[in-house]
Amino acid sequence: MRAVDIIEKKRNGLELTNEEIKFLINGYTNGDIPDYQMSAFTMAVYFQGMNDNEATNLALAMLHSGDELNLDMIEGVKVDKHSTGGVGDKTSLVLAPLVASLGINFAKMSGRGLGHTGGTLDKLESIPGFNISLTDDEFIEQLKKIHLAIIGQTVNLAPADKKLYSLRDVTATVDSIPLIASSIMSKKLASGANAICLDVKVGSGAFMKNIDSARKLAKLMVAIGNKCNRHMTAVLTNMDEPLGFAVGNSVEVLEAINTLNGNGPKDLLELCLTLGAYLVIDSNLASTVSEAKDLLRKQIENKEGLNKLAEMVNAQGGDSSYIFNPAKFVLGKNVIEIKSQNKGYVSKIDALAIGHAAMLVGAGREKITDTINPRVGVVLNKKVGDYVNENETLATLYSDGNNEKEAIEMIKKAYSYADFEIEPKLILEIIR
Amino acid sequence: MRAVDIIEKKRNGLELTNEEIKFLINGYTNGDIPDYQMSAFTMAVYFQGMNDNEATNLALAMLHSGDELNLDMIEGVKVDKHSTGGVGDKTSLVLAPLVASLGINFAKMSGRGLGHTGGTLDKLESIPGFNISLTDDEFIEQLKKIHLAIIGQTVNLAPADKKLYSLRDVTATVDSIPLIASSIMSKKLASGANAICLDVKVGSGAFMKNIDSARKLAKLMVAIGNKCNRHMTAVLTNMDEPLGFAVGNSVEVLEAINTLNGNGPKDLLELCLTLGAYLVIDSNLASTVSEAKDLLRKQIENKEGLNKLAEMVNAQGGDSSYIFNPAKFVLGKNVIEIKSQNKGYVSKIDALAIGHAAMLVGAGREKITDTINPRVGVVLNKKVGDYVNENETLATLYSDGNNEKEAIEMIKKAYSYADFEIEPKLILEIIR
Repeated sequence: MRAVDIIEKKRNGLELTNEEIKFLINGYTNGDIPDYQMSAFTMAVYFQGMNDNEATNLALAMLHSGDELNLDMIEGVKVDKHSTGGVGDKTSLVLAPLVASLGINFAKMSGRGLGHTGGTLDKLESIPGFNISLTDDEFIEQLKKIHLAIIGQTVNLAPADKKLYSLRDVTATVDSIPLIASSIMSKKLASGANAICLDVKVGSGAFMKNIDSARKLAKLMVAIGNKCNRHMTAVLTNMDEPLGFAVGNSVEVLEAINTLNGNGPKDLLELCLTLGAYLVIDSNLASTVSEAKDLLRKQIENKEGLNKLAEMVNAQGGDSSYIFNPAKFVLGKNVIEIKSQNKGYVSKIDALAIGHAAMLVGAGREKITDTINPRVGVVLNKKVGDYVNENETLATLYSDGNNEKEAIEMIKKAYSYADFEIEPKLILEIIR
Repeated sequence: MRAVDIIEKKRNGLELTNEEIKFLINGYTNGDIPDYQMSAFTMAVYFQGMNDNEATNLALAMLHSGDELNLDMIEGVKVDKHSTGGVGDKTSLVLAPLVASLGINFAKMSGRGLGHTGGTLDKLESIPGFNISLTDDEFIEQLKKIHLAIIGQTVNLAPADKKLYSLRDVTATVDSIPLIASSIMSKKLASGANAICLDVKVGSGAFMKNIDSARKLAKLMVAIGNKCNRHMTAVLTNMDEPLGFAVGNSVEVLEAINTLNGNGPKDLLELCLTLGAYLVIDSNLASTVSEAKDLLRKQIENKEGLNKLAEMVNAQGGDSSYIFNPAKFVLGKNVIEIKSQNKGYVSKIDALAIGHAAMLVGAGREKITDTINPRVGVVLNKKVGDYVNENETLATLYSDGNNEKEAIEMIKKAYSYADFEIEPKLILEIIR
């Protein structure tokens, strides 16, 4: 078997066998197949695509290039969640404790933020003492005890994917649906969960710019997971504005706490209940979505979700008093209200621009080596559908003085207006 | 400027600027741009193509990566010829002396054979003493004196093309018309001729399998040459059988001598007269094709073409007595007549198979390091259109004993038959 023949076969639009895909990925991982053949291959895939079988085989080949987390010693269903990356996306901070409070094992390996997108690990580290670095054994022990852990990647998950992603990043082959799907799924499959829910963001602020490509990506990921005997749910969600009000780190943890206290933003709550409902169903605790949502709502009312969050913070070395007394979070010393120069109904809030503004004041990273200031961020006062008068406060910037002017301008410009009422729609489609 | 953005632009089907193409080629030549970005780029070009401007700029950028041969000190028009590679293609050995005998400077840097295709340099080296390694100065001096030189590449012509071709060869990006056109033209432009004729072979035995792709390639090469102020002619020729009768080295030189003596195969003569006619017109020695062909025919009748070949052989250290006394050429010790098992009109002779058979007995190279046996080869007794009876001789194999059986079988199988008369057609189209 020769790499050049496999590249040519894909270039000519033919289906690759499992053996051919394994040959490529194994050869690439051990260095027998050079970068220049893989980049020609990924460009051929960009143009010719891959069917469900090929993408599944690719995901599995990348999964088998590294370690797999075996969660079999934990009783019951193990669930996981993945988002394709949004702005203000603190969903995991609400969803995971809510679901885990029902006794479902929520085993999540999460990532850090880069560019306009925040990372769950960075947000959790706003809580003094919180430790994201557990060993495999500690991770499994904590799951056994309290059904919940959110940590950084421990084991060597899908190293072929990591190597391939770095290559795609510099060869203009990132935007390929089968490559994106198999990349995400190789890591999700390696993490050992039985039921996985995916939040696929759609819109100008998201990786998938339109509903068609988002639907294709979601369907393919669901197909890959199903072929590997995972319960899969993908939810397509609108990114025509940030999720919730808060964009930053401490401000997002605060909003998650508010939501678990029953005072969360409508859109964030809706997303958490929807994603959670399918995980509850896949864990056999409910048979319908409305039944599952009722169960989850009860965990907000009785504060069991909030207690579970505090329990996890405690287990991972964090100061859980912050959860019950959120006034302890210190925010940026400059609190700047950004006023509207227009009037009308807010029709859109450019999520990319808001994420970028938050990054500029220090809430995110431009380069992987940048450090994050947990105190700063943006809190929106107006969301899509709200009516705004001239000089009314659009958003509040919490800053320690970095790039304030630029961030303020960016936030102002992020708002678009209409002269008619607009009904925001978060959840666009559910694919099971 | 970043390579990844240029790759993405081409991937998205947009036209690249000259600056972008220069940035890529210069960066690739000096090592700033790695192989893995260039192979992704060439795969994007495979799918999205390049327009005339882009292909011209690519050819020029590759040309400027190395030396250029300056032939300005030679008076008059300088002409050159290129073939995309055929079987039995001894055209240069006839065409060059014929044209040069009219006082036109024929300055040709040629190549060696690989696989089923023979090389002009290998054929010339069948003549004892013939030296293909002239310096630049010797090349130019010989052209000034006798208007003719055929040598190996002296200067560092288009090193970017050499580097890029090696990469394309292992990344399934050879079959791209703009990449082929700019590769060929970068070297032809660097060789300093004012008028260039191209023989673009079409058919199963050729690189271009059908007339449409051959026409595209020819038109693009003509466009590139014209944009660079070269007189260009491309002739599309049929490769449904080898050119002439002889396939090998000494046997092909013998056939070239026969042709210059007025006893050549009809198809070879027709091709030499056609290609030559346009070079004669571009040198202002005739204004119509028929006038130019008459001039060339006269150079056969008066033996001036043959004398010119002998003059070149002499100038390059070869024994020119072989040209006037071709019986001096020693052929393979085994002379095997291959008999027909069928009867009917020959409808096709698989040129690839005949070239491969000649290679097997030692007339060509499988690997670049193989040595050639000039004595061996195949001489066809029957060509397309000929009627063959059972047991009639199809072809004669001259061999020194290597792989004879395999070669004989291959030659037999190369012949296809029809029960109706067939008119072979060599010249399919002329593009100026």
